[in-house]
Amino acid sequence: MSFIDQLNWRYATKRMITDKVIPQEKLDNIIEAIRLSATSWGLQPFNVIVVKDKEMLQQIQPLAYNQQQIGEASALIVFAVWDKITQEKIDIFFNLISSERGIPAESLAGYKAMVEGSIFSMDDATASAWMARQAYIGLGTGLAAAAVEEVDTCPMEGFSAAALDEFLGLPAKGLKSVVILAVGYRDEDNDPTSKMKKVRISTEEFVVSK
Amino acid sequence: MSFIDQLNWRYATKRMITDKVIPQEKLDNIIEAIRLSATSWGLQPFNVIVVKDKEMLQQIQPLAYNQQQIGEASALIVFAVWDKITQEKIDIFFNLISSERGIPAESLAGYKAMVEGSIFSMDDATASAWMARQAYIGLGTGLAAAAVEEVDTCPMEGFSAAALDEFLGLPAKGLKSVVILAVGYRDEDNDPTSKMKKVRISTEEFVVSK
Repeated sequence: MSFIDQLNWRYATKRMITDKVIPQEKLDNIIEAIRLSATSWGLQPFNVIVVKDKEMLQQIQPLAYNQQQIGEASALIVFAVWDKITQEKIDIFFNLISSERGIPAESLAGYKAMVEGSIFSMDDATASAWMARQAYIGLGTGLAAAAVEEVDTCPMEGFSAAALDEFLGLPAKGLKSVVILAVGYRDEDNDPTSKMKKVRISTEEFVVSK
Repeated sequence: MSFIDQLNWRYATKRMITDKVIPQEKLDNIIEAIRLSATSWGLQPFNVIVVKDKEMLQQIQPLAYNQQQIGEASALIVFAVWDKITQEKIDIFFNLISSERGIPAESLAGYKAMVEGSIFSMDDATASAWMARQAYIGLGTGLAAAAVEEVDTCPMEGFSAAALDEFLGLPAKGLKSVVILAVGYRDEDNDPTSKMKKVRISTEEFVVSK
């Protein structure tokens, strides 16, 4: 399949086959794709929590309007942004650039000041919204990676972030969930949407001319 | 190259070769990937504007901190969300589902009411932030699609949205730009970052355990 065919193949899977577990290598590739995703400045202001334990998946399901694909999934990838962008986070990021690229910290000082100026000009709500957008680039990449692996997915915004955060112990880690992604294999017998046509506006409508 | 290799190959390209134009077929595939992207409910609350005209690209460059890759790019893809989610937009969406899937509107009424309840419970700022996140899923998909096509890209948030919107006539179309994506070919001779190591936190740090 071409990449476009793979994107056409994917759909928001509402039911998954519980006992069909995705190979660890495929899950690793999906997570690796998310890790490699672009983010503004390259800051990566989010982490993922990967839940594979069946009992935990079943406990999470009621926190998300009881969507069955959660309990049935092979894994749930939780995208969680930082609760706050601190000076320490920025320092860690620039130390990483410095060590990975062998550039002295002094040579990065001007660039660092620019990044800090931009980031610390945002109030907390703006910063949270900005971090969430970066996580969504990762979500887009992860959805594409899963399609490439011919693994089914369902991205979900419909869940109680507060309850999920509490369940996963995220506040103590300085993280807040923003979106979740169930990963597994479609259950065609029980998911009528698996046979429905993908609905998208036409290219002519989607691409607006100047 | 594997998909992961392609993601490793991509980077935020700061300089592009002006006279190396990407084939229309590759650009079409990138746009198609964005069009096929997942969005919440499948609503697709954003459009893209594709600028290929060299003179226009050069006029846009100063609206984006004079980032040279804009004037040098083969194309600039502008992601623009709706300025407001109206009842008309929702009606158009549900009419499309109905016609594409051959489902009578009455059968979709319950689902439609649920979508409306969720969407119209958001104030304007929340709705704008939510639409931007959907566009960023498209950005992630577009970045991946370009990497698959071995086409270079640079996603950019650093631009005057008000000035770009005015330049592109977006207010009259009920659209607001949220992020832009330059597409073209890396100019390795003039872009020192093309030879720098990609910096990402390790998988061990990126994946947080419960």
